[in-house]
Amino acid sequence: MAQSGGPTAVINASLAGVIHEAGRHDGIAEIYGGANGILGILNEDLIDINDEKARSIGGLRYTPAAALGTCRYSIDLKNQPEQAARDLDRLFAVFQAHSIGCFFYLGGNDSQDTALKIHEAALQRGYELRVIGVPKTIDNDLPHTDHCPGYGSVVKFNATTVMEIGLDFGCMATDDGACCLIEVMGRSAGWIAAGTVLAKRGQPANPPHIILLPELAFEEDKFLAKVKAAVAAFNYCIVVVGEGIKNAAGQEVGADKARLDAFGHPVLAGAAERLKEVVQGNLKLKARTARLSYAQRAAGHCASLTDADNAFACGEAAVKAAMAGQSGQMVKLVREAQPDGSVKWSTGLQPLADIANVEHLVPRDWLSEDGFLPNEKFVEYARPLIEGEVELPREAGLPKYVVLEKSKVEKKLPPRG
Amino acid sequence: MAQSGGPTAVINASLAGVIHEAGRHDGIAEIYGGANGILGILNEDLIDINDEKARSIGGLRYTPAAALGTCRYSIDLKNQPEQAARDLDRLFAVFQAHSIGCFFYLGGNDSQDTALKIHEAALQRGYELRVIGVPKTIDNDLPHTDHCPGYGSVVKFNATTVMEIGLDFGCMATDDGACCLIEVMGRSAGWIAAGTVLAKRGQPANPPHIILLPELAFEEDKFLAKVKAAVAAFNYCIVVVGEGIKNAAGQEVGADKARLDAFGHPVLAGAAERLKEVVQGNLKLKARTARLSYAQRAAGHCASLTDADNAFACGEAAVKAAMAGQSGQMVKLVREAQPDGSVKWSTGLQPLADIANVEHLVPRDWLSEDGFLPNEKFVEYARPLIEGEVELPREAGLPKYVVLEKSKVEKKLPPRG
Repeated sequence: MAQSGGPTAVINASLAGVIHEAGRHDGIAEIYGGANGILGILNEDLIDINDEKARSIGGLRYTPAAALGTCRYSIDLKNQPEQAARDLDRLFAVFQAHSIGCFFYLGGNDSQDTALKIHEAALQRGYELRVIGVPKTIDNDLPHTDHCPGYGSVVKFNATTVMEIGLDFGCMATDDGACCLIEVMGRSAGWIAAGTVLAKRGQPANPPHIILLPELAFEEDKFLAKVKAAVAAFNYCIVVVGEGIKNAAGQEVGADKARLDAFGHPVLAGAAERLKEVVQGNLKLKARTARLSYAQRAAGHCASLTDADNAFACGEAAVKAAMAGQSGQMVKLVREAQPDGSVKWSTGLQPLADIANVEHLVPRDWLSEDGFLPNEKFVEYARPLIEGEVELPREAGLPKYVVLEKSKVEKKLPPRG
Repeated sequence: MAQSGGPTAVINASLAGVIHEAGRHDGIAEIYGGANGILGILNEDLIDINDEKARSIGGLRYTPAAALGTCRYSIDLKNQPEQAARDLDRLFAVFQAHSIGCFFYLGGNDSQDTALKIHEAALQRGYELRVIGVPKTIDNDLPHTDHCPGYGSVVKFNATTVMEIGLDFGCMATDDGACCLIEVMGRSAGWIAAGTVLAKRGQPANPPHIILLPELAFEEDKFLAKVKAAVAAFNYCIVVVGEGIKNAAGQEVGADKARLDAFGHPVLAGAAERLKEVVQGNLKLKARTARLSYAQRAAGHCASLTDADNAFACGEAAVKAAMAGQSGQMVKLVREAQPDGSVKWSTGLQPLADIANVEHLVPRDWLSEDGFLPNEKFVEYARPLIEGEVELPREAGLPKYVVLEKSKVEKKLPPRG
């Protein structure tokens, strides 16, 4: 197994699910982890999971970030066919050398694409390998699954924070007002920004008052009118800004083309900083910004129990599927509305070919007519995802997360060429 | 009573302490709150606390921000003597009209100065008033008190977040590395930035690797050498930046003088953003930023129980002092080391004249020789302040904070002139 792409608060819970289920099957003799995703396999840097303390494995259920390390390395058959072919040769050499029969890849769109490439290569080579993808991404943009593990926790933290900033900003409105712009992650999908609508708890007066999604072209005039109206109504205005918002021409609002960085690229001052200037310049209102950045996706101290449980279940389901002879599939979560109005999820499988590189965006009809807030359809979808709190052990007032020993499996091959 | 200045996660706990203790004294017939600090008294906008539900008062112990509203309004006898004289006349007219005999002001340096002015004016006028200041500031820069309520909670949240960002950033180091700059509050005092050293838990490899305090002049060369060394040693580098850091000439690093905002002031891009350009430009390292902004001081979901308990105790002590006939004093916290190595605090009193407008900075000998990290003396001081978690009621996965009804006391005076 290996972890890939940007980490989340619960990707380790999926890892724990894989390990827990794998331990129940006699057919699985060894459990190895790739250090830093697929790079670890290419480099034959394999971690012996059975060498870890049981306590550490248990602790993965509440430890954020990727305990095995992660990477953004892809196998790019289209643009780098020679490199990709060499990589696949090497991967299968490592698999063969260590008698690896199952490969579980925990990741988002790119990683599911990599899993698909490995599955197809195994078929072509006649190497018996069961490849199962485990969904993971705070961006929540994988298709066919009800949601992606990692998303519920980022929403829980961000909605909590927006609520708290709103309380703070609201009580200061006589002085420090009037507009606070909170930038959250999401370069092309607005799921994360949209999720902060839960902080409203159904009350129009509650923040956030405006949510800007990358799915809709940013229109400065309409935005300014909306800020003005919110300040008139509530004395202050909390705006949540998806980092990747673009204008009608498709240009990122956060890019400052007048200034180039050391690499010659436009300085990405950030969308919130840019909009602060827009608000101050046009409305003569004091504006402030917050940029939650990595804090939001790493916030294990505010993780959703629902999210962590679903993440664990996806890990378990992946191993069960492989043991049942499946390959080339991704585990998905299927929503099952309960008679009492609550929601549960079961797991299912979806061919990786349906997943890889397809991006699932927020549906337009889940947003208000003017596009500045998600509507009740979105709220109904998102609300169950943040239920429950992950209990954390603590030491001296801070979370006590686990760190794996990562003892390495002995190498059997010459170094990667 | 009234709340003043920037709110904290526990200023309402002090309010709860005042209300709780006031309710125990037969001599206190009515308990009024000023809406938005002293502005509420000037405007005769008084909130009838006895009209609030007991449940709401209890909920103040875990609700962040200022439940009565706050302001930054000062009584400036020196620079605006006429306005100040009018304000004092009006204040005492309101006090008299409502038979107010005690005034509790919850705030930081400026607010304690205002409390002192009111105390002195009462003596001059022969109006019998007991004025007690209750300390509050995340900045932790009030003198004579061991620490300021509000500080422990901001440190707990920030240290937790730095730990979590470190886990995230560390496991991505092969790709997204190498330097993450986290900007925290503190314009002239570095207590907040320094507090994140607790995330290290004594391990040099743990983040943060560098902490920049406003107390020490920022030296670019030494900073860059330090970043380079950290990346060489640990593969990544987490830098915590106090927002107010200045260069040797006293200029704020975060101010971009080349760009003016709508008010003609230099754009405050933020110190972290500026340093990101410095790191990328000089070391050709990828850099990322986070700007926790209001999220840090409003983070009730991660408040320190020690902090909340001390805040409550300060509120109680203020009322006890007034009932004992004291005036012109601020409550202070006195550290008492216990034989078992733990720490407790008692409350004491300090004349407001010793407090007002004196700023207590991080002592130089609590920092490492090169100034880039607080040392063991600081850690010993700060560690007990983040102990324990405030338990929160929750609803639908979010904290359930209280909002006061704020029913207004009937006005007896004509509007303020």
